[in-house]
Amino acid sequence: MDISALGEFELIARLTAGLATRAAGDVGIGDDCALLDLGSGDLLLATCDCQVEGVHFTLQTSSPEHIGRKALAINLSDIAAMGGTPRYALVSLLLPPHLSVDVLDGIYAGLRAEAQRFDTTIVGGNIAGTGAAQQLVIDITLLGTVARGHAILRSGARVGDLICVTGSLGDSAAGLQTFLRPATDAVLPHDLQALRGRHTAPLPRVHEGQLLASFKAGQITAMLDISDGLSGDLTHLCERSGCGARVDLATIPLSTPLSHVAQALQHDPLDWALHGGEDYELLFTLQLPSLDEVRTALQEQCGTPLTVIGEIQPLSAGLTLAHSNGHTEPLHAHSWDHLKPKK
Amino acid sequence: MDISALGEFELIARLTAGLATRAAGDVGIGDDCALLDLGSGDLLLATCDCQVEGVHFTLQTSSPEHIGRKALAINLSDIAAMGGTPRYALVSLLLPPHLSVDVLDGIYAGLRAEAQRFDTTIVGGNIAGTGAAQQLVIDITLLGTVARGHAILRSGARVGDLICVTGSLGDSAAGLQTFLRPATDAVLPHDLQALRGRHTAPLPRVHEGQLLASFKAGQITAMLDISDGLSGDLTHLCERSGCGARVDLATIPLSTPLSHVAQALQHDPLDWALHGGEDYELLFTLQLPSLDEVRTALQEQCGTPLTVIGEIQPLSAGLTLAHSNGHTEPLHAHSWDHLKPKK
Repeated sequence: MDISALGEFELIARLTAGLATRAAGDVGIGDDCALLDLGSGDLLLATCDCQVEGVHFTLQTSSPEHIGRKALAINLSDIAAMGGTPRYALVSLLLPPHLSVDVLDGIYAGLRAEAQRFDTTIVGGNIAGTGAAQQLVIDITLLGTVARGHAILRSGARVGDLICVTGSLGDSAAGLQTFLRPATDAVLPHDLQALRGRHTAPLPRVHEGQLLASFKAGQITAMLDISDGLSGDLTHLCERSGCGARVDLATIPLSTPLSHVAQALQHDPLDWALHGGEDYELLFTLQLPSLDEVRTALQEQCGTPLTVIGEIQPLSAGLTLAHSNGHTEPLHAHSWDHLKPKK
Repeated sequence: MDISALGEFELIARLTAGLATRAAGDVGIGDDCALLDLGSGDLLLATCDCQVEGVHFTLQTSSPEHIGRKALAINLSDIAAMGGTPRYALVSLLLPPHLSVDVLDGIYAGLRAEAQRFDTTIVGGNIAGTGAAQQLVIDITLLGTVARGHAILRSGARVGDLICVTGSLGDSAAGLQTFLRPATDAVLPHDLQALRGRHTAPLPRVHEGQLLASFKAGQITAMLDISDGLSGDLTHLCERSGCGARVDLATIPLSTPLSHVAQALQHDPLDWALHGGEDYELLFTLQLPSLDEVRTALQEQCGTPLTVIGEIQPLSAGLTLAHSNGHTEPLHAHSWDHLKPKK
């Protein structure tokens, strides 16, 4: 049997089965970051994520600077998803021998700019050649800190909690489609630029995550970032919290450029919002009495809108999608699987 | 210009120029690990290193278990080189789609076994597909701790310090040659197994490094692990310490299997010992009055021999190799460069 028959998530479950964390205070496998207790006032957060040429990016559609920025941004987003403060990055590069030095300089300029933007220091790394393979890989480990008792895990959602997202969903997937599909003449340049920007240079919600972690324990009950797509990531959150969820379709926040491009490409924008990946918005749950306070703080301190898109349900209710006419249907995860062949 | 024209070390210098560490207490780029101050009693060590199929290993010459073990061992060796205690590992895998699940299970069994051997917890990681490329990559970030004031850097060597190594040198390079060269009929199976074992499943000197860091500050003045080869790694140590060095050729410790195999393959064993990589022994400097105490402790507590192979010289003396007849010659680094084409 080869690994493509298993797929990414089954393989992770297989490899991590039985991997225990060292101490009761540590949280390991299964959240956005590992949460580690080294005995100081803050806990340590550690995460790693990589970008592979031809899988996650191409030099035809992204500038070297954007590739570098995004490689760090997706890790910053994992720290944000636990409410942490990014601190230190290690950058591991796999370089094909005939890569141009200019491209590498550009990637590193992007890495440095993104690190500086979020007060993160590049403290180490590694360079290796790819041998016969011709694909550039940027693999980053990011360390952060979070005040003891303030990390927000995936596992804390409870029945009746409101399901919230920052910003808008689907833009990144729509931006990717404008690269892949030729019919972009009908799309306004301004809309094209906005959506492609969200795909090639996503903004990690670091400040928003820190703000959410600063509330009293129990106000924000669970959180992760939307990297696989809303349907997939809400599934992860519900699995870890042992609950179900209802998403109200009409409330999902869509941007104006997304609506325009969906019309031009004749695609349902809600498909991108529900199942498209790489939005890097925060998906979190909170208790109803905290809603106004949290919404106001996010708007005033970060300029970021909060939208309530549904409610946590009992486990037995499963994941459902509620239409505005009252009809409900099961919500299935259609996440991107990096290991399974494309349909 | 493409990167192979620059080579690994020039490229690292180019990319890391101007990368500053955050605080005065932190040591970043240029040592075996980054040394980070998060405010607890211990300092944090962070390092990453990867193994690429076809560059660092092949499934023809290493078992999946050994590949997993070695991928972690080379990182454990970096923690050892600073005198630290390994704590947490993050495992990033790049998987070709048709990799067999059995191979991956074997690699992970090796990773777990090596982690358990050195009381290290695998707390996270990432899995990505390689797309069109067919090379397996195992990229590991390892975190460790070291008591404040006890980390041993590359930069502390002073004129007159003795240059010491643990164990014996050249075995790994000789083991690799027995895979590459067909004339191994003349080699005894026991010798073949010993040298190949040092290449495919090196033992990181974690306990030795911790012991060396436990001495009073200033007794052990500088340290790194021998991954690039003695000539290359001594060059790194001298560059960081701003000094020269004399290596006494006759004192370099060679194992009995190495001597046998060198004879069978008609190769100078000192060439492997000086310039072969991946021995993962510790190379360190100490002040003469500490020699007996340190040698006895290493032997009694770790069962590991210490050999004095030379002396730190003024910068102006450069790096020299002293023959037993009194003749000296310059010692040039012939380190493996992962980016330059092979000769």
